[in-house]
Amino acid sequence: MSGSIAGKVAIIGAGITKFGELFEQSYNDLVVEAAFEAYEDAGVSGDDVEAAWLGTYLPLGWGFDGTGGPSLAEALNLYPKPVSRVANYCTTGMEAVRMAAMAVASGMHDVVLAVGAEKMREVPPRGSLVAQHVEKLHPMYSKGRTAPGSFAVLARRYFEEFGADKEDLAEVAVKNHYHGSLNNRAHFRKEITKEQVLKAPPVTEPLGLYDCCPTTDGAAAVVLCRADLAESRFDKKDYVLIDGMGLSCATGYITTAFNPKFSFIGFEATQEAARQAYEQAGVTNPREEIDVAEVHDCFTITEILNYEDLGFVEKGEGPGFVKSGASRLGGELPVNTSGGLKSCGHPIGATGARVVADLTNQLLGRCGERQVKGAKRALGHTLGGPGAVSSVFVLSRN
Amino acid sequence: MSGSIAGKVAIIGAGITKFGELFEQSYNDLVVEAAFEAYEDAGVSGDDVEAAWLGTYLPLGWGFDGTGGPSLAEALNLYPKPVSRVANYCTTGMEAVRMAAMAVASGMHDVVLAVGAEKMREVPPRGSLVAQHVEKLHPMYSKGRTAPGSFAVLARRYFEEFGADKEDLAEVAVKNHYHGSLNNRAHFRKEITKEQVLKAPPVTEPLGLYDCCPTTDGAAAVVLCRADLAESRFDKKDYVLIDGMGLSCATGYITTAFNPKFSFIGFEATQEAARQAYEQAGVTNPREEIDVAEVHDCFTITEILNYEDLGFVEKGEGPGFVKSGASRLGGELPVNTSGGLKSCGHPIGATGARVVADLTNQLLGRCGERQVKGAKRALGHTLGGPGAVSSVFVLSRN
Repeated sequence: MSGSIAGKVAIIGAGITKFGELFEQSYNDLVVEAAFEAYEDAGVSGDDVEAAWLGTYLPLGWGFDGTGGPSLAEALNLYPKPVSRVANYCTTGMEAVRMAAMAVASGMHDVVLAVGAEKMREVPPRGSLVAQHVEKLHPMYSKGRTAPGSFAVLARRYFEEFGADKEDLAEVAVKNHYHGSLNNRAHFRKEITKEQVLKAPPVTEPLGLYDCCPTTDGAAAVVLCRADLAESRFDKKDYVLIDGMGLSCATGYITTAFNPKFSFIGFEATQEAARQAYEQAGVTNPREEIDVAEVHDCFTITEILNYEDLGFVEKGEGPGFVKSGASRLGGELPVNTSGGLKSCGHPIGATGARVVADLTNQLLGRCGERQVKGAKRALGHTLGGPGAVSSVFVLSRN
Repeated sequence: MSGSIAGKVAIIGAGITKFGELFEQSYNDLVVEAAFEAYEDAGVSGDDVEAAWLGTYLPLGWGFDGTGGPSLAEALNLYPKPVSRVANYCTTGMEAVRMAAMAVASGMHDVVLAVGAEKMREVPPRGSLVAQHVEKLHPMYSKGRTAPGSFAVLARRYFEEFGADKEDLAEVAVKNHYHGSLNNRAHFRKEITKEQVLKAPPVTEPLGLYDCCPTTDGAAAVVLCRADLAESRFDKKDYVLIDGMGLSCATGYITTAFNPKFSFIGFEATQEAARQAYEQAGVTNPREEIDVAEVHDCFTITEILNYEDLGFVEKGEGPGFVKSGASRLGGELPVNTSGGLKSCGHPIGATGARVVADLTNQLLGRCGERQVKGAKRALGHTLGGPGAVSSVFVLSRN
């Protein structure tokens, strides 16, 4: 029977680079910046780190950065320690944290590092030989089903089922751009209006430019240790505990041809990953028990589906939830106070680590203007292509 | 301080496909065959498996098989369970087992699956757009330093330092081809003579055709469970315990420009991974305490270096070790009784899982003609490019 590592692992340091189009920083520069911020925050040096996990999804253009553990070992001079790489679509950064946490809970290591990093602006997305190859061979792209195209189908179906419309989606974009304006690490830091969203150029109807997250460069890192060492060894009065970590692979939009069950109004992967994490963490009423959440808003429709799949509200109630201000800063359950993928951008391997690092900052009260006051329990969520993999973390302040 | 999971995790099932040029089997076919053999061996069904790890290093030609956990989840219908992917050069398959084992030791799961798979013969190595791109951009290939070219430098240096020659390398090829002739899963099942090795076409002097392992398609899988459940839940009288798992990233041949310390007569990654695994397992005299070993013979010179790096013999004594017959079936420490990478081939993501599965079969006395009688303790080793990452497992019969 699946169990839990609840209470065994502490997060004692977090680091997040500025996200953006960072031509002036190499992949290694980003990794070093994120990791050293996390080291400094934790009060550790590289010497304290016993092992590390790297999350990078697609080493772009086969530049070879992030192909394996040696990329991280070289950037941080972690030789000759164990350094591994994980890759699991858009959950990749969270997977690095999950593996690192299980290593600590297993008794193999006391202090470990997890880093997520991706550099997506270097190679023109449509220009490289690799991209051309991908477009020819990829089971979705070769049929024109890009990510926006696939999520647009869910938006259409959702509109049909629940009478929602583009104005509901715009609420998510406006909220997350507002949050992003308060986050100095976000790619985009400008507020937008509902009118701007609705008048923006269409990408795939009904999704317009402001319904889509950008592609971005960035990295994030966390330092984990055995929970019982956080205070005794590292003198931490305040730290974060991992209460639950769920992961689920479920059929998604790419496999719908083989899965007539796929509803197009939600993701079973999110529902199941949340179920696992809630069970481990003892969460029974997420809307009441979670104080702040970062969820996977790759598109505005996705955030609405997430509210429902994560159990914050019932199916069909997502649009009302965002419209009411419940998920805005100051609301009952602020969601994506970082600006989310919408404003931070989505460097694939970095995102999950950024979510965990950002929630660590929230739980420790370090988010300034965008701080959720008194936040004690946080939820982090990522959802990966092909619609089929999701990871959910539940974190709490010690 | 780094610890150990010794004694916490059991291997209760192993599966290995026929390795070879398998155009008639898809990636999924290979994964299914290996996993179902492991299920049957363990006496479990997919329903018993709580989570799984996939090791695939380079989804070739971006065919997208093995890009993330969903590849394995789909092939085995593991929905909606947690399925992750790891990639760490030639240690990839062993990394899948290592992550799976830590998950069990952490208390997160009782029964898990680890699969390694790679399909390398589908896309002509030099033909694909991706391969062209790699050759242009790869920091080694772009300078003509292919894998054989890099290991040839080590062979030359070793010859210079210790007075060895091509005849010493040939001893490894002859031995491993003999072992491979006894293994019905090996890619090549023919014995060769020393004369054939020495007369074979040169690849990169001093390495000839028979000094190099082939590229191959294949998959392997193991089922792991909490050690205390092996007998009580699965009624196993005989099973295998994981005593030690080491991983090390160290500077290797690719980074020698930045690492004047690199000796070219051994790999620090192997030495350090072995040190970790021996410490965890309580091994102090590997030559005495290990009964059978599978080591990374990507090239014949590598096996000789491995003997020394793993502490079977002192530096410079590798050629004498193989020449004496010590590492041949019937010798004091048979090495690569499967035929090794030389005869089995080297489907990158599969190899590490194949090594663990093969040693499981040895420890359980199921290797027929190539059985090492009374083998109680086994060592598995992989060494990954860029010369910088190595994994070592120590296993024992319960």
